[in-house]
Amino acid sequence: MARQERAIRTRQKILLAAAGLFDEVGYEAATIAEVLRRCGVTKGALYFHFTSKEELAQEVLAAQIAMLPPVPPRPLLLQTLTDEALVLAHLLRVADPLVRGSVRLTVDQGSPHDGLDRRIPMRGWIDRTAEVFTRARAAGELLPHVDIPAMAHLFTASFIGVQVLSKIMTGHADMVERVSDLMRTTMSSVAVPGVLVRLDFSPSRAWPAYEEALRAGGTRPPAPAPASE
Amino acid sequence: MARQERAIRTRQKILLAAAGLFDEVGYEAATIAEVLRRCGVTKGALYFHFTSKEELAQEVLAAQIAMLPPVPPRPLLLQTLTDEALVLAHLLRVADPLVRGSVRLTVDQGSPHDGLDRRIPMRGWIDRTAEVFTRARAAGELLPHVDIPAMAHLFTASFIGVQVLSKIMTGHADMVERVSDLMRTTMSSVAVPGVLVRLDFSPSRAWPAYEEALRAGGTRPPAPAPASE
Repeated sequence: MARQERAIRTRQKILLAAAGLFDEVGYEAATIAEVLRRCGVTKGALYFHFTSKEELAQEVLAAQIAMLPPVPPRPLLLQTLTDEALVLAHLLRVADPLVRGSVRLTVDQGSPHDGLDRRIPMRGWIDRTAEVFTRARAAGELLPHVDIPAMAHLFTASFIGVQVLSKIMTGHADMVERVSDLMRTTMSSVAVPGVLVRLDFSPSRAWPAYEEALRAGGTRPPAPAPASE
Repeated sequence: MARQERAIRTRQKILLAAAGLFDEVGYEAATIAEVLRRCGVTKGALYFHFTSKEELAQEVLAAQIAMLPPVPPRPLLLQTLTDEALVLAHLLRVADPLVRGSVRLTVDQGSPHDGLDRRIPMRGWIDRTAEVFTRARAAGELLPHVDIPAMAHLFTASFIGVQVLSKIMTGHADMVERVSDLMRTTMSSVAVPGVLVRLDFSPSRAWPAYEEALRAGGTRPPAPAPASE
């Protein structure tokens, strides 16, 4: 049992080091040697868990959705979705290495034959959003005309774009504010008026929502505190 | 004069080849040698126009907005903005090398010290959008509550995200349809009802709007025809 726990911890250490490296230099320039240097694990231990750089990267990609700590359900489903988006924005701002590394792997185009399947995390975000919208519809929160698959796709795309632009313009410093704008605009297009007036998009929700999510069952190590709060 | 024309054509040939290469392999992996091989220009001619790979890339980035052929003004400013977005989507779908190369240079994070300033084209798109919104407000097309700087920023971000997601999921094949969804949703949030009902977001506008823009004064070589229309 202790051995199994150690193995899990080693695996996590390798993944974190790899994600941090992918975030800094991208997939092409990253090397297994540098991952080893950063996590202080033996070559044998790394190859016990991952057979190649590609497998490491695919694992970081696959972990993208699971790395979001679970925000406890709110009375309104659309508030839960808003708070999840704010928590993800917070993680990107505070430079959580797993989140940033995985997001960079997704967004960088890479070479045509790098073998990474970036559709897996994207499909995951689209499906997850569509599922929340579907439950919101059943709960009477959604405007009747909303085309759920199209809106889930557009919302996922917009979040990605907000991330790319925030990274370029401010190094992610304004990420939470920009996601707050995105949520206000998106919700204005999809929520019935009685729900819309009860939603809160304040950027200041991000940090408490993140801490609450961690307490609610997040098992990941806490991200570093934001530079300014 | 003929010499000057030849110089302009050579410069354009080099830029096109470089953009195509940046699109395929990204900034890091691109080499001057491969640009030379692709455009059939001598090394001396290339270095007469561009002193380094970085300068070539910066030029491709700077050309990002100018490469959009000018859509003739529509009776409604928000229709002009919609048609411009559809034309840009069309150029990405048909794999216009300058557009795709420049967009990839923008979106790929690159190494921390590659020296490329990706904020220049981004600032350009945000400012351009804000300017159209400002004129739309003066013309009575915009809802009074719209926060123009925030909305111009969010629209630019969303377009980038739609591009990234379309590239990942379909290799840009669904780009025009996804931009049509984006325009419908954005305009529903910003246009007054009397304008909104007169706007046309059909994906089928993209190709004729592009041809019209070329006739109206586009001097660039026409993009290849789309695979299916």
